[in-house]
Amino acid sequence: MRVLLINPNITDSVSALIRAEAQRSASPGTEVDVLTAPFGVAYIETRFEALLGAYATAQLAAEHAANYDAVVVAAFGDPGLAALREVLPVPVTGLTEAALASAHLLGHRISIIAISQRIQAWYREVVESYGFSSRLASIRALDRPLASIGGVQDEHAQALQDLAERAVAEDGADVIILAGAPLAGLARSLHGRLPVPVVDGVSSAVRHAETLAALKPGRARQGSFSRPPAKPHRGLPDAIARLLDSPR
Amino acid sequence: MRVLLINPNITDSVSALIRAEAQRSASPGTEVDVLTAPFGVAYIETRFEALLGAYATAQLAAEHAANYDAVVVAAFGDPGLAALREVLPVPVTGLTEAALASAHLLGHRISIIAISQRIQAWYREVVESYGFSSRLASIRALDRPLASIGGVQDEHAQALQDLAERAVAEDGADVIILAGAPLAGLARSLHGRLPVPVVDGVSSAVRHAETLAALKPGRARQGSFSRPPAKPHRGLPDAIARLLDSPR
Amino acid sequence: MRVLLINPNITDSVSALIRAEAQRSASPGTEVDVLTAPFGVAYIETRFEALLGAYATAQLAAEHAANYDAVVVAAFGDPGLAALREVLPVPVTGLTEAALASAHLLGHRISIIAISQRIQAWYREVVESYGFSSRLASIRALDRPLASIGGVQDEHAQALQDLAERAVAEDGADVIILAGAPLAGLARSLHGRLPVPVVDGVSSAVRHAETLAALKPGRARQGSFSRPPAKPHRGLPDAIARLLDSPR
Amino acid sequence: MRVLLINPNITDSVSALIRAEAQRSASPGTEVDVLTAPFGVAYIETRFEALLGAYATAQLAAEHAANYDAVVVAAFGDPGLAALREVLPVPVTGLTEAALASAHLLGHRISIIAISQRIQAWYREVVESYGFSSRLASIRALDRPLASIGGVQDEHAQALQDLAERAVAEDGADVIILAGAPLAGLARSLHGRLPVPVVDGVSSAVRHAETLAALKPGRARQGSFSRPPAKPHRGLPDAIARLLDSPR
Amino acid sequence: MRVLLINPNITDSVSALIRAEAQRSASPGTEVDVLTAPFGVAYIETRFEALLGAYATAQLAAEHAANYDAVVVAAFGDPGLAALREVLPVPVTGLTEAALASAHLLGHRISIIAISQRIQAWYREVVESYGFSSRLASIRALDRPLASIGGVQDEHAQALQDLAERAVAEDGADVIILAGAPLAGLARSLHGRLPVPVVDGVSSAVRHAETLAALKPGRARQGSFSRPPAKPHRGLPDAIARLLDSPR
Amino acid sequence: MRVLLINPNITDSVSALIRAEAQRSASPGTEVDVLTAPFGVAYIETRFEALLGAYATAQLAAEHAANYDAVVVAAFGDPGLAALREVLPVPVTGLTEAALASAHLLGHRISIIAISQRIQAWYREVVESYGFSSRLASIRALDRPLASIGGVQDEHAQALQDLAERAVAEDGADVIILAGAPLAGLARSLHGRLPVPVVDGVSSAVRHAETLAALKPGRARQGSFSRPPAKPHRGLPDAIARLLDSPR
Repeated sequence: MRVLLINPNITDSVSALIRAEAQRSASPGTEVDVLTAPFGVAYIETRFEALLGAYATAQLAAEHAANYDAVVVAAFGDPGLAALREVLPVPVTGLTEAALASAHLLGHRISIIAISQRIQAWYREVVESYGFSSRLASIRALDRPLASIGGVQDEHAQALQDLAERAVAEDGADVIILAGAPLAGLARSLHGRLPVPVVDGVSSAVRHAETLAALKPGRARQGSFSRPPAKPHRGLPDAIARLLDSPR
Repeated sequence: MRVLLINPNITDSVSALIRAEAQRSASPGTEVDVLTAPFGVAYIETRFEALLGAYATAQLAAEHAANYDAVVVAAFGDPGLAALREVLPVPVTGLTEAALASAHLLGHRISIIAISQRIQAWYREVVESYGFSSRLASIRALDRPLASIGGVQDEHAQALQDLAERAVAEDGADVIILAGAPLAGLARSLHGRLPVPVVDGVSSAVRHAETLAALKPGRARQGSFSRPPAKPHRGLPDAIARLLDSPR
Repeated sequence: MRVLLINPNITDSVSALIRAEAQRSASPGTEVDVLTAPFGVAYIETRFEALLGAYATAQLAAEHAANYDAVVVAAFGDPGLAALREVLPVPVTGLTEAALASAHLLGHRISIIAISQRIQAWYREVVESYGFSSRLASIRALDRPLASIGGVQDEHAQALQDLAERAVAEDGADVIILAGAPLAGLARSLHGRLPVPVVDGVSSAVRHAETLAALKPGRARQGSFSRPPAKPHRGLPDAIARLLDSPR
Repeated sequence: MRVLLINPNITDSVSALIRAEAQRSASPGTEVDVLTAPFGVAYIETRFEALLGAYATAQLAAEHAANYDAVVVAAFGDPGLAALREVLPVPVTGLTEAALASAHLLGHRISIIAISQRIQAWYREVVESYGFSSRLASIRALDRPLASIGGVQDEHAQALQDLAERAVAEDGADVIILAGAPLAGLARSLHGRLPVPVVDGVSSAVRHAETLAALKPGRARQGSFSRPPAKPHRGLPDAIARLLDSPR
Repeated sequence: MRVLLINPNITDSVSALIRAEAQRSASPGTEVDVLTAPFGVAYIETRFEALLGAYATAQLAAEHAANYDAVVVAAFGDPGLAALREVLPVPVTGLTEAALASAHLLGHRISIIAISQRIQAWYREVVESYGFSSRLASIRALDRPLASIGGVQDEHAQALQDLAERAVAEDGADVIILAGAPLAGLARSLHGRLPVPVVDGVSSAVRHAETLAALKPGRARQGSFSRPPAKPHRGLPDAIARLLDSPR
Repeated sequence: MRVLLINPNITDSVSALIRAEAQRSASPGTEVDVLTAPFGVAYIETRFEALLGAYATAQLAAEHAANYDAVVVAAFGDPGLAALREVLPVPVTGLTEAALASAHLLGHRISIIAISQRIQAWYREVVESYGFSSRLASIRALDRPLASIGGVQDEHAQALQDLAERAVAEDGADVIILAGAPLAGLARSLHGRLPVPVVDGVSSAVRHAETLAALKPGRARQGSFSRPPAKPHRGLPDAIARLLDSPR
């Protein structure tokens, strides 16, 4: 089985973190690849940055998805995920969606630990759009400058652990999600140090992608995730144009 | 006052409908311009098509917004609206957001009349994302093929009126929104023929844009609609790069 | 165009504030009048006081609405607004409804700054009745005695600004509403001093009333905002009786 | 124990129905009185009619409540109830609130059977304002003209029973509320003929009023149902003015 | 009239508190009995403990309900209540359900004061399952060890009162519920010392049980609270088996 | 890896269906065992039957869980699941929870196809308790007698497929869950015949159980899913008593 993870940001060091955790998490026999957005921003904190990342992800996915059994949008916030589910020929998930699925299986109230204050509003809107508001205990975030986006989890491990502990003690969290591709792998290294189960987006996404590919639930031929109706288009990147024109 | 309307689709005949209704609705002294997306699809019915339209809109807005007092995303569904609100130097609204604001002032339960079955899921998710679910009486849509997207309102006027009447009688609608730029102006021609107030996205958006420009509520310097924090980027269209790099 | 604002309270100094801000906000060619309730309380903080104000407003509106193009219930909390929408021959809005419509166009999460602790529960229930709970970041209020209701905004300008800043910093507000007719005009004088857009009820209501009068969305002949079915009545003030008996 | 029921409408025949059912329902030793609004409409179907009924109820309650152990607003929709709870010296409830409390003890999903199509929107908003939306299976209503408001339950008994049966079979109702003072007593006569428990507003209100008077939960001296803060007022009916001025 | 209260826990001293408050609250002519679970835990704080208590309650109810006019599940959290409502031949309520019904009649926002930190999550889920989330101002709980479960209200009276006062001042509570059978009677002794009305589960449940028995709303013969469809079973306690097999 | 599935019902033919689908779905190297409740009913349709099944499941789980890497409550509705999560030493999931997690990854709106009319209310309440109401498009169910519970999917395959198709066409479902252990395996045989992805509870639960066991998210030592606080108990089955007394 082959799983493609697409980093919607341009930062190679984050792609390396994603790759490492994906490989640690994958089942035997699963091959994981990671692609990095060719254009965009260093990391996504806002709706506008997500708009840019969604478009870059769409281009990469359109070009490469056919060679894989499943695709993962490898940024928390899942830029472009629902859109891609309409057009890709294989199952697709994202870090937020997958982490919420895992957390849902581990407890009732979920807290998300994030890397910046600004990122919280975007995360909250994504969680709400998935209908998970009533499960969300809190979002807590670092409030200090990040020396390097790829080094956040090393630099701020203790602060992130403190945020998680406060989410349990003060917000009633039953489960913690360590959010954002830059934190990929941190759940693994904090194992046993947090008072509640802890979930990581990358490992959850890889495992759930494998499950979807294995269970073969079928593609949508009707409903809101079936292919968009055929219609004229103009000026789109080749891979996207081919995807829209591919036989139904 | 100058208001820019951006059609996120590539269809000039729809831009013409938008322009005509915008001119009819604008206050004396307001100048309206309409730009058409240079790439994308003929009309937006799905999340993926909205992703494409959002990116095209972002490019046009980044390039032109500084010359206007307000910007309107001129497709129902408002592709890219919340993202653009973070970065544009002037107020921005969209057809759905503006139509909901008008409808909110006219009654409690709101029905949306749309041009295709497929478009309903996307519309519903947008309305939900604005927190208007409890105000939504129903979405009803045409279920027949459209001969031409620019001619929908002429071809299907009676069917659209019938849908509106059923929304009032069966769904408890207090207000009707005729949704989608291809229906721009239809509210005006149906005036007096519907049993409840009827709202049009384009005229609402133009008027609300004028109000925002006139009241000068101030720009966000903090909070989730302030400018994205400065960070490295790469490979973006020039106008977008300049917008991200402009002095804070 | 003529817009009538009805102050549901008996305090002339508040009517003067309303009049001044309404005149500053109105479009060229719009004439605004303000009427003050002939009976009631000095200002409305509770449900019972709103019941009194609603009845006074209904009497004034029944008597005078026919001479205007639109009516505004000029107290935050909108006493009697939905009721009046059923019977008045012209569009009607209120300070809360109009401020929420404006705020909805400027950001996602909205905080309301109010003049007394007690007033918060009533405001919250009104916001909830409009279906805006999920957009409400917080209500924050002064916790000190008011020397005079007409002088609140002068006396407590800094405290009100502080509340707004805390709503942004601690509650995640994207937009601020300065609530209550006694604060009419304060948004204008705080312009540029708050970190997010700030909305005023009076100016929003005047502008939205103009928009409704201009767009002519039509009256409800069916649905829950059409005229109440004809039925016997007894002992009502003349203007209200005439309104109920007017031809359908 | 003495319980006062106030009919917010002007129709004596409905007051007679209320009185009869209240006497049948009251515990031994409880004396019930019914007062009829001196002004208003024949029956309340809309928000505006409720505004009128609320004011009439407030006047009667202000004048008479001190002579009773509890007060009941005896119209479904409870015009003025929350307002009166702030100022009356004794417990107060209403037909909707009390019927919902009873229904809540008998099943999960509740359907309301009403006497007119128009009345449904107002009922729905009241149920929503009490936070009971998730418990509401449906509102179903007669769709025929009423020969006399006091004779509805005789004239339409079978049609009302049919509506209740459809609510169970099609809407998943676990409990039925027969809504509106004109249906007072019908639950009693339909006993054994409906497939689920059936609740009546008048009998529920009388019993719950007795319970509140017996359990003596205490008056609100703080919070949003404590007395409105003292402030100037003008031109109010004497009984209301005395209530506002009574020592705290 | 005879009302049976079942203590789902094994602690006799709590049963004694329940009995004393039930007798104080019952109307003249009502006889109350209290049974204590023959197996289970000392008091219920968690979902698993509630599962055990629900089964014990079901056995006692199946054996004894036929001799009573109504049954009360006498633990806050109501273990097994909805299940028992399907099978018992008489009305049944529980302390949480009954306390919420009372509180709903006394104010809008309700706070629950509880005896342990751990118990809060379970209480919250029960309140949510009843659809009362929007009415819940807060749950506040003791955070100290309990010397004896039967002596909590004596030992911690002041701390419980302090929690209630903070719920009013900080959480906006209009009504307080003192939660848990170990606090039975405390509302009575705190009478007059709290700034808002205070509700007790046992007295509410006894009174509401009397009301249900008196009003005779009828049993569910259809809908989700009618008897479970007949089907094979095996190995169940005799009383439960008889209940399932009793003629429909 | 060893996964234990517990059938909370007494029907061996359903256990056989569960076992067969579990074995087909398990990853290489995973061993699955199925245990059947020693007491209870033939299949669970109601809250009371779920109460019985929960207790039987608790006994089996207490006795056997320590020999497995994960446990599955193998009835749709998940009787006892949240309770068991507090006490079992290994991860535990249930058919509903797991099916919802899978469906969440495949589309937005989810319909559940069930085997009896009566079962729907219980299913709906479970879905609501998981916070998934906004994702639920509909529950549709067979309305005919079942010749044998183990043969439902053979006997009624076409009717079940018809229900699924109507859920897509009329309710806007993006994903279908075939609900109930008696339908285990049907998703597999309907593969390719439904217009949207289709999810099965047993295969989802086995796969998600494997994922939880593999990712090792950690046990709850705090929060609402940590072990219940130690306290006296009496009369409990040995395995449950040992579980409560096991060292923390």
